[in-house]
Amino acid sequence: MKIMKSILRNTAIWAAIVAMLVLTSNTALAKDPLPSWNDGATKQSIINFVKKVTDKSGPDYVPPEERIATFDNDGTLWSEQPFYFQFGPFVIDRIKALAPKHPEWKTTQPFKAALEGDKKTLADSGMKGFTQLAMTAHAGGTTAEFEQTVKDWIATAKHPRFKRHYTELVYQPMLELLSYLRANDFKSFIVSGGGIDFMRPWVEKVYGIPPEHVVGSSIKTKFEMRDGKPVLVRLPELDFMNDKDGKPVAIHKFIGRRPIAAFGNSDGDLPMLQWTVAGDGPSLIAIVHHTDAKREWAYDRKSDIGRLDKALGEANAKGWPVVDMKKDWKVVYPFEMK
Amino acid sequence: MKIMKSILRNTAIWAAIVAMLVLTSNTALAKDPLPSWNDGATKQSIINFVKKVTDKSGPDYVPPEERIATFDNDGTLWSEQPFYFQFGPFVIDRIKALAPKHPEWKTTQPFKAALEGDKKTLADSGMKGFTQLAMTAHAGGTTAEFEQTVKDWIATAKHPRFKRHYTELVYQPMLELLSYLRANDFKSFIVSGGGIDFMRPWVEKVYGIPPEHVVGSSIKTKFEMRDGKPVLVRLPELDFMNDKDGKPVAIHKFIGRRPIAAFGNSDGDLPMLQWTVAGDGPSLIAIVHHTDAKREWAYDRKSDIGRLDKALGEANAKGWPVVDMKKDWKVVYPFEMK
Repeated sequence: MKIMKSILRNTAIWAAIVAMLVLTSNTALAKDPLPSWNDGATKQSIINFVKKVTDKSGPDYVPPEERIATFDNDGTLWSEQPFYFQFGPFVIDRIKALAPKHPEWKTTQPFKAALEGDKKTLADSGMKGFTQLAMTAHAGGTTAEFEQTVKDWIATAKHPRFKRHYTELVYQPMLELLSYLRANDFKSFIVSGGGIDFMRPWVEKVYGIPPEHVVGSSIKTKFEMRDGKPVLVRLPELDFMNDKDGKPVAIHKFIGRRPIAAFGNSDGDLPMLQWTVAGDGPSLIAIVHHTDAKREWAYDRKSDIGRLDKALGEANAKGWPVVDMKKDWKVVYPFEMK
Repeated sequence: MKIMKSILRNTAIWAAIVAMLVLTSNTALAKDPLPSWNDGATKQSIINFVKKVTDKSGPDYVPPEERIATFDNDGTLWSEQPFYFQFGPFVIDRIKALAPKHPEWKTTQPFKAALEGDKKTLADSGMKGFTQLAMTAHAGGTTAEFEQTVKDWIATAKHPRFKRHYTELVYQPMLELLSYLRANDFKSFIVSGGGIDFMRPWVEKVYGIPPEHVVGSSIKTKFEMRDGKPVLVRLPELDFMNDKDGKPVAIHKFIGRRPIAAFGNSDGDLPMLQWTVAGDGPSLIAIVHHTDAKREWAYDRKSDIGRLDKALGEANAKGWPVVDMKKDWKVVYPFEMK
């Protein structure tokens, strides 16, 4: 009993310290949960929404298990210019790495163009050439081998404009939003057109989103025994393209609940936003609008990458919050904060 | 500051009460975390595994985020005789419910046989007839409508032998195992050949497993606007069959991490067990062997439902734990406990 009392006393002291830390951090959060966001309608609509769905005594309360938020990745959580990081630089680097075993690529298109950086021929090869390169870069080995390939690339490759690792080109304001939602018991999922196996090796470290909360495009895999050990072999065949109408389909399949919050930046995200806002309860959706050519890029209706046309029209017509990167964000990338 | 002190003191007192409750319940758990399991090798191997992977100072420690456990459903978490509950009684009941709108079924096979309970003709219609009935029962409406259909059926339908709701035919020892793993920060997923949309409406309430932790078979869905509102329409086309080799494929796709524990009962679970045990770290796999004709059913190598042949051979050869329902379980169903 003496031991019990001592344990309880120690637990109580320890709990008091934790409580103090929690109170302190809550006070800090109460001051500003989104410090890199300028005050304005967008920031306020996020904060109002979170307050409302977590207020147990309010009419819009949502229990924690139903607080599902979905985020597009390319252009919403990290940059996507001048070409989607996975389908541009990663694919090209992968082709270069595989080239020594394929001497025939020196004279075969579209591989020749990829190896020589011949952008015109690459563009001319169209979707067929692109698919051939992408499948070659992504298929062939086992899932374990591909995971290592992605880890190595993410740790070393650098963006040509910023000379920084691609994972440094994530948006500081969105990292704060992810933290803010996490602190309020949301479960955030990535729902991206990017490859599910391309994102999983690094998103937990970079975004705090666990692999099982990643929904993305995939190629087929095959279960096989090799030397008595089971492996999953990556096949050069598309399994699912997680874009446009595919996003609500995949949200339903992978998550099985309708999100109450969703964030995107392009027309590819429109069905996900429509699906989210059509729920019975309260919801928050927002579009990241790339308006800052100086700190990031400025593009929308006419861009081949991350085109934002139809979704911008619908946002304007329906009053959906649009994040104006230039006006709404104090900083874009974490490295700007030194 | 005075208020702060008062809050801290109250928090501390409150924390002490919580700590006492936790200590008490931990003591209870320490006594027996699996009270419906008879003492023996199987129970001990489960407890040893959980202790080992949660022991921070031990060599087999696994951080909480990697404590993934996967469970087959039919025959592992609930019964599956005389026919899988979804693909037998649910399908037949659904055909009966839809029949008034399909007068032609009175004279068209396999619908006629389904409506008349003509088991011989049903069996003769084979996989083609079965697929036709299953697709008719599962496709057609929206995902929201299907969810309501499942909820209604689960709330009302009863098993012919036990005259109880199907959700009462879950295994008490497995419920305890799920609780025990949850208390030790495991994330448990269902990985079942059953329909993902058939399980999600009720598994959270029955097993404490959230919808986003359900992996299963699926039919395709299509995103569509109806009167300006987005819906997902269920198409009569198989999307994915989550059985045999499909289980590790789906585990990789949906979860993206290899489980460290897996539980199954049939040859359909063998690849999932092989995949789990092939991980680098510690793992626990077990097979539920149906050996109790009196309290449940007894079947294995020759059963058409939940055949356990190859997996039993491999379990015996490799020393995998096999749960002998008759010997290992004090009770089978929760209702036996009164």
